[in-house]
Amino acid sequence: MAENIFKTIGHHYIVEASSCDPEIIGSVEKVQQILVKAAEAAGAQVWAISFSRFPPNGVSGVVVISASHISTHTWPENGYAALDIYTCGADVDPEKAVFYAVEAFGASTSHITEITRGIDEGDAAYYHSFVTWEENFRKTKEAEKRRERCNDS
Amino acid sequence: MAENIFKTIGHHYIVEASSCDPEIIGSVEKVQQILVKAAEAAGAQVWAISFSRFPPNGVSGVVVISASHISTHTWPENGYAALDIYTCGADVDPEKAVFYAVEAFGASTSHITEITRGIDEGDAAYYHSFVTWEENFRKTKEAEKRRERCNDS
Repeated sequence: MAENIFKTIGHHYIVEASSCDPEIIGSVEKVQQILVKAAEAAGAQVWAISFSRFPPNGVSGVVVISASHISTHTWPENGYAALDIYTCGADVDPEKAVFYAVEAFGASTSHITEITRGIDEGDAAYYHSFVTWEENFRKTKEAEKRRERCNDS
Repeated sequence: MAENIFKTIGHHYIVEASSCDPEIIGSVEKVQQILVKAAEAAGAQVWAISFSRFPPNGVSGVVVISASHISTHTWPENGYAALDIYTCGADVDPEKAVFYAVEAFGASTSHITEITRGIDEGDAAYYHSFVTWEENFRKTKEAEKRRERCNDS
Protein backbone atom coordinates (compact mmCIF):
# COMPACT_ATOMS: atom_id res chain seq x y z
CA MET A 1 0.00 0.00 0.00
CA ALA A 2 2.72 2.44 1.04
CA GLU A 3 4.44 1.76 -2.27
CA ASN A 4 1.28 2.68 -4.19
CA ILE A 5 0.83 5.88 -2.21
CA PHE A 6 4.41 6.86 -2.88
CA LYS A 7 4.00 6.17 -6.56
CA THR A 8 0.90 8.27 -7.19
CA ILE A 9 1.52 11.17 -4.80
CA GLY A 10 2.18 14.47 -6.55
CA HIS A 11 2.67 18.04 -5.40
CA HIS A 12 0.96 20.78 -7.36
CA TYR A 13 1.59 24.43 -6.53
CA ILE A 14 -0.96 26.98 -7.75
CA VAL A 15 0.51 30.47 -7.51
CA GLU A 16 -0.85 33.97 -8.12
CA ALA A 17 2.20 36.27 -8.22
CA SER A 18 1.43 39.99 -7.74
CA SER A 19 3.39 43.20 -8.36
CA CYS A 20 5.73 41.45 -10.78
CA ASP A 21 8.17 43.41 -12.91
CA PRO A 22 6.27 44.10 -16.18
CA GLU A 23 9.49 44.16 -18.22
CA ILE A 24 10.39 40.67 -17.05
CA ILE A 25 6.99 38.96 -17.27
CA GLY A 26 6.32 40.70 -20.61
CA SER A 27 9.38 39.16 -22.27
CA VAL A 28 8.95 35.73 -23.86
CA GLU A 29 12.73 35.17 -23.69
CA LYS A 30 13.06 36.15 -20.02
CA VAL A 31 10.04 34.13 -18.87
CA GLN A 32 11.31 31.10 -20.76
CA GLN A 33 14.79 31.49 -19.25
CA ILE A 34 13.31 31.83 -15.73
CA LEU A 35 11.07 28.77 -16.01
CA VAL A 36 13.86 26.58 -17.37
CA LYS A 37 16.12 27.73 -14.51
CA ALA A 38 13.27 27.14 -12.04
CA ALA A 39 13.01 23.54 -13.28
CA GLU A 40 16.76 23.13 -12.84
CA ALA A 41 16.57 24.68 -9.34
CA ALA A 42 14.00 22.00 -8.45
CA GLY A 43 16.36 19.28 -9.67
CA ALA A 44 14.20 18.39 -12.67
CA GLN A 45 15.27 17.45 -16.16
CA VAL A 46 13.73 19.58 -18.93
CA TRP A 47 12.10 17.49 -21.67
CA ALA A 48 10.30 20.07 -23.79
CA ILE A 49 9.36 23.74 -23.79
CA SER A 50 6.67 25.80 -25.49
CA PHE A 51 6.52 29.58 -25.09
CA SER A 52 4.58 32.18 -27.02
CA ARG A 53 3.19 35.69 -26.92
CA PHE A 54 -0.10 35.84 -25.02
CA PRO A 55 -1.88 38.90 -26.44
CA PRO A 56 -1.69 41.76 -25.92
CA ASN A 57 1.55 41.85 -23.88
CA GLY A 58 1.73 38.61 -21.92
CA VAL A 59 3.60 35.35 -22.17
CA SER A 60 2.15 31.83 -22.16
CA GLY A 61 4.60 29.04 -21.52
CA VAL A 62 4.95 25.43 -20.48
CA VAL A 63 8.08 23.51 -19.48
CA VAL A 64 7.63 19.74 -19.51
CA ILE A 65 9.92 18.21 -16.94
CA SER A 66 10.46 14.59 -15.92
CA ALA A 67 6.89 13.34 -15.30
CA SER A 68 5.82 16.82 -14.36
CA HIS A 69 5.28 20.34 -15.71
CA ILE A 70 5.66 24.04 -15.00
CA SER A 71 3.41 26.55 -16.71
CA THR A 72 2.83 30.27 -16.60
CA HIS A 73 0.51 32.81 -18.15
CA THR A 74 1.37 36.47 -17.52
CA TRP A 75 -0.37 39.85 -17.63
CA PRO A 76 2.42 42.46 -17.47
CA GLU A 77 -0.13 45.29 -17.68
CA ASN A 78 -1.44 44.06 -14.30
CA GLY A 79 1.92 42.95 -12.84
CA TYR A 80 0.29 39.53 -12.52
CA ALA A 81 1.58 36.05 -13.34
CA ALA A 82 -0.39 32.81 -12.92
CA LEU A 83 2.05 29.97 -12.27
CA ASP A 84 1.59 26.27 -11.62
CA ILE A 85 4.10 23.56 -10.93
CA TYR A 86 3.25 19.87 -10.67
CA THR A 87 5.82 17.26 -9.73
CA CYS A 88 5.78 13.68 -8.59
CA GLY A 89 8.60 11.58 -7.20
CA ALA A 90 11.02 12.25 -4.42
CA ASP A 91 13.88 13.54 -6.56
CA VAL A 92 12.34 16.93 -7.40
CA ASP A 93 11.65 19.81 -4.99
CA PRO A 94 8.84 21.88 -6.57
CA GLU A 95 8.94 24.54 -3.84
CA LYS A 96 12.42 25.52 -5.01
CA ALA A 97 11.02 26.09 -8.50
CA VAL A 98 8.15 28.17 -7.11
CA PHE A 99 10.41 30.43 -5.09
CA TYR A 100 12.97 30.78 -7.86
CA ALA A 101 10.34 31.76 -10.46
CA VAL A 102 8.34 34.12 -8.26
CA GLU A 103 11.45 35.95 -7.06
CA ALA A 104 12.80 36.18 -10.59
CA PHE A 105 9.47 37.61 -11.77
CA GLY A 106 10.06 40.37 -9.21
CA ALA A 107 6.81 39.63 -7.34
CA SER A 108 6.33 41.26 -3.95
CA THR A 109 3.52 38.95 -2.79
CA SER A 110 2.08 35.60 -3.79
CA HIS A 111 -1.07 33.68 -2.96
CA ILE A 112 -0.06 30.01 -3.01
CA THR A 113 -2.00 26.76 -2.72
CA GLU A 114 -0.07 23.51 -2.43
CA ILE A 115 -2.21 20.59 -3.52
CA THR A 116 -1.16 17.08 -2.53
CA ARG A 117 -2.48 14.89 -5.32
CA GLY A 118 -3.05 11.19 -5.91
CA ILE A 119 -3.87 10.32 -2.29
CA ASP A 120 -5.87 7.16 -1.61
CA GLU A 121 -6.86 5.21 1.46
CA GLY A 122 -6.27 1.84 -0.16
CA ASP A 123 -9.57 1.89 -2.05
CA ALA A 124 -8.06 3.30 -5.29
CA ALA A 125 -10.46 6.28 -5.10
CA TYR A 126 -7.93 9.08 -5.49
CA TYR A 127 -8.35 12.56 -4.04
CA HIS A 128 -6.32 15.64 -3.20
CA SER A 129 -5.93 17.91 -0.20
CA PHE A 130 -4.64 21.47 -0.05
CA VAL A 131 -3.17 24.19 2.08
CA THR A 132 -3.14 27.89 1.14
CA TRP A 133 -0.95 30.73 2.36
CA GLU A 134 0.34 34.18 1.46
CA GLU A 135 4.03 34.70 0.86
CA ASN A 136 5.70 38.09 0.97
CA PHE A 137 8.92 38.45 -0.91
CA ARG A 138 11.48 40.87 0.28
CA LYS A 139 13.36 42.06 -2.73
CA THR A 140 16.61 40.51 -1.62
CA LYS A 141 19.99 41.33 -3.10
CA GLU A 142 20.08 37.92 -4.69
CA ALA A 143 16.71 38.47 -6.36
CA GLU A 144 17.79 41.92 -7.50
CA LYS A 145 20.93 40.44 -9.08
CA ARG A 146 18.84 37.77 -10.77
CA ARG A 147 16.55 40.40 -12.25
CA GLU A 148 19.54 42.45 -13.35
CA ARG A 149 20.95 39.44 -15.14
CA CYS A 150 17.58 38.93 -16.84
CA ASN A 151 17.47 42.60 -17.81
CA ASP A 152 21.00 42.44 -19.21
CA SER A 153 20.45 39.29 -21.25
CA MET B 1 -11.83 47.51 -12.95
CA ALA B 2 -14.32 45.04 -14.39
CA GLU B 3 -12.22 44.94 -17.53
CA ASN B 4 -9.11 44.05 -15.52
CA ILE B 5 -10.93 41.34 -13.60
CA PHE B 6 -12.20 39.84 -16.84
CA LYS B 7 -8.74 39.91 -18.28
CA THR B 8 -6.92 38.08 -15.48
CA ILE B 9 -9.61 35.61 -14.41
CA GLY B 10 -8.78 32.00 -15.22
CA HIS B 11 -10.39 28.65 -14.47
CA HIS B 12 -8.14 25.81 -13.39
CA TYR B 13 -9.56 22.31 -12.92
CA ILE B 14 -7.53 19.87 -10.81
CA VAL B 15 -8.82 16.34 -11.37
CA GLU B 16 -8.01 12.95 -9.84
CA ALA B 17 -9.63 10.36 -12.13
CA SER B 18 -10.06 6.89 -10.59
CA SER B 19 -10.82 3.43 -12.00
CA CYS B 20 -9.65 4.47 -15.46
CA ASP B 21 -9.17 1.92 -18.22
CA PRO B 22 -5.48 0.87 -17.95
CA GLU B 23 -5.26 0.11 -21.67
CA ILE B 24 -6.34 3.64 -22.53
CA ILE B 25 -4.33 5.62 -19.98
CA GLY B 26 -1.31 3.40 -20.62
CA SER B 27 -1.17 4.28 -24.32
CA VAL B 28 0.77 7.41 -25.29
CA GLU B 29 -1.13 7.60 -28.59
CA LYS B 30 -4.58 7.26 -27.03
CA VAL B 31 -3.92 9.73 -24.22
CA GLN B 32 -2.56 12.24 -26.75
CA GLN B 33 -5.60 11.76 -28.99
CA ILE B 34 -7.97 12.21 -26.04
CA LEU B 35 -6.34 15.38 -24.76
CA VAL B 36 -6.27 16.99 -28.21
CA LYS B 37 -9.95 16.14 -28.65
CA ALA B 38 -10.68 17.45 -25.14
CA ALA B 39 -9.10 20.78 -26.12
CA GLU B 40 -11.24 20.86 -29.25
CA ALA B 41 -14.35 19.99 -27.20
CA ALA B 42 -13.62 23.04 -25.05
CA GLY B 43 -13.41 25.23 -28.14
CA ALA B 44 -9.66 25.80 -27.80
CA GLN B 45 -7.03 26.01 -30.50
CA VAL B 46 -4.12 23.59 -30.05
CA TRP B 47 -0.72 25.31 -30.27
CA ALA B 48 1.72 22.62 -29.21
CA ILE B 49 1.79 19.11 -27.74
CA SER B 50 4.35 17.07 -25.83
CA PHE B 51 3.67 13.47 -24.84
CA SER B 52 6.00 10.79 -23.57
CA ARG B 53 6.21 7.52 -21.70
CA PHE B 54 6.14 8.06 -17.92
CA PRO B 55 7.89 5.00 -16.50
CA PRO B 56 7.06 2.27 -15.92
CA ASN B 57 3.72 2.20 -17.78
CA GLY B 58 2.26 5.71 -17.59
CA VAL B 59 1.93 8.65 -19.93
CA SER B 60 2.98 12.24 -19.28
CA GLY B 61 1.54 14.83 -21.62
CA VAL B 62 0.85 18.52 -22.09
CA VAL B 63 -1.32 20.23 -24.68
CA VAL B 64 -0.68 23.96 -24.98
CA ILE B 65 -3.87 25.68 -26.07
CA SER B 66 -4.63 29.35 -26.70
CA ALA B 67 -3.35 31.08 -23.53
CA SER B 68 -3.99 27.92 -21.55
CA HIS B 69 -2.92 24.30 -21.09
CA ILE B 70 -4.11 20.77 -20.43
CA SER B 71 -1.81 18.24 -18.81
CA THR B 72 -2.02 14.69 -17.60
CA HIS B 73 0.18 12.16 -15.84
CA THR B 74 -1.15 8.61 -15.65
CA TRP B 75 -0.57 5.47 -13.58
CA PRO B 76 -2.34 2.64 -15.48
CA GLU B 77 -1.23 0.12 -12.85
CA ASN B 78 -3.41 2.05 -10.38
CA GLY B 79 -6.17 3.04 -12.82
CA TYR B 80 -5.31 6.61 -11.86
CA ALA B 81 -4.85 9.74 -13.98
CA ALA B 82 -3.93 13.19 -12.65
CA LEU B 83 -5.37 15.82 -14.98
CA ASP B 84 -5.33 19.61 -14.92
CA ILE B 85 -6.84 22.12 -17.28
CA TYR B 86 -6.27 25.86 -17.08
CA THR B 87 -8.04 28.32 -19.35
CA CYS B 88 -8.64 32.04 -19.41
CA GLY B 89 -10.98 34.03 -21.59
CA ALA B 90 -14.65 33.62 -22.31
CA ASP B 91 -14.30 31.67 -25.55
CA VAL B 92 -13.19 28.37 -24.01
CA ASP B 93 -15.24 26.05 -21.78
CA PRO B 94 -12.76 24.03 -19.70
CA GLU B 95 -15.46 21.92 -18.07
CA LYS B 96 -16.21 20.38 -21.46
CA ALA B 97 -12.57 19.35 -21.74
CA VAL B 98 -12.60 17.86 -18.23
CA PHE B 99 -15.69 15.77 -18.87
CA TYR B 100 -14.55 14.67 -22.31
CA ALA B 101 -11.13 13.52 -21.04
CA VAL B 102 -12.32 11.82 -17.87
CA GLU B 103 -15.06 9.91 -19.70
CA ALA B 104 -12.67 8.91 -22.46
CA PHE B 105 -10.17 7.65 -19.85
CA GLY B 106 -12.98 5.34 -18.70
CA ALA B 107 -12.98 6.74 -15.14
CA SER B 108 -15.85 5.81 -12.87
CA THR B 109 -15.27 8.57 -10.29
CA SER B 110 -13.35 11.82 -10.12
CA HIS B 111 -12.38 14.18 -7.33
CA ILE B 112 -12.42 17.65 -8.88
CA THR B 113 -11.40 21.09 -7.64
CA GLU B 114 -12.23 24.12 -9.75
CA ILE B 115 -9.93 27.02 -8.91
CA THR B 116 -10.93 30.51 -10.00
CA ARG B 117 -7.63 32.30 -10.52
CA GLY B 118 -6.47 35.89 -10.95
CA ILE B 119 -9.13 37.47 -8.73
CA ASP B 120 -8.42 40.89 -7.24
CA GLU B 121 -10.42 43.44 -5.32
CA GLY B 122 -8.93 46.39 -7.16
CA ASP B 123 -5.69 46.37 -5.16
CA ALA B 124 -3.76 44.25 -7.69
CA ALA B 125 -3.09 41.60 -4.99
CA TYR B 126 -4.26 38.53 -6.89
CA TYR B 127 -5.68 35.44 -5.22
CA HIS B 128 -7.72 32.35 -6.06
CA SER B 129 -10.76 30.61 -4.63
CA PHE B 130 -11.89 27.02 -5.04
CA VAL B 131 -14.73 24.58 -4.87
CA THR B 132 -14.33 20.79 -4.66
CA TRP B 133 -16.72 17.98 -5.51
CA GLU B 134 -16.93 14.32 -6.44
CA GLU B 135 -18.24 13.32 -9.83
CA ASN B 136 -19.49 9.84 -10.62
CA PHE B 137 -19.44 8.81 -14.24
CA ARG B 138 -21.98 6.37 -15.48
CA LYS B 139 -20.39 4.47 -18.28
CA THR B 140 -22.75 5.82 -20.89
CA LYS B 141 -23.16 4.37 -24.35
CA GLU B 142 -21.50 7.43 -25.79
CA ALA B 143 -18.47 7.01 -23.52
CA GLU B 144 -18.32 3.31 -24.37
CA LYS B 145 -18.32 4.12 -28.08
CA ARG B 146 -15.57 6.70 -27.54
CA ARG B 147 -13.45 4.12 -25.77
CA GLU B 148 -14.12 1.58 -28.51
CA ARG B 149 -12.97 4.09 -31.10
CA CYS B 150 -9.82 4.65 -29.05
CA ASN B 151 -9.27 0.92 -28.76
CA ASP B 152 -9.73 0.48 -32.50
CA SER B 153 -7.40 3.29 -33.50
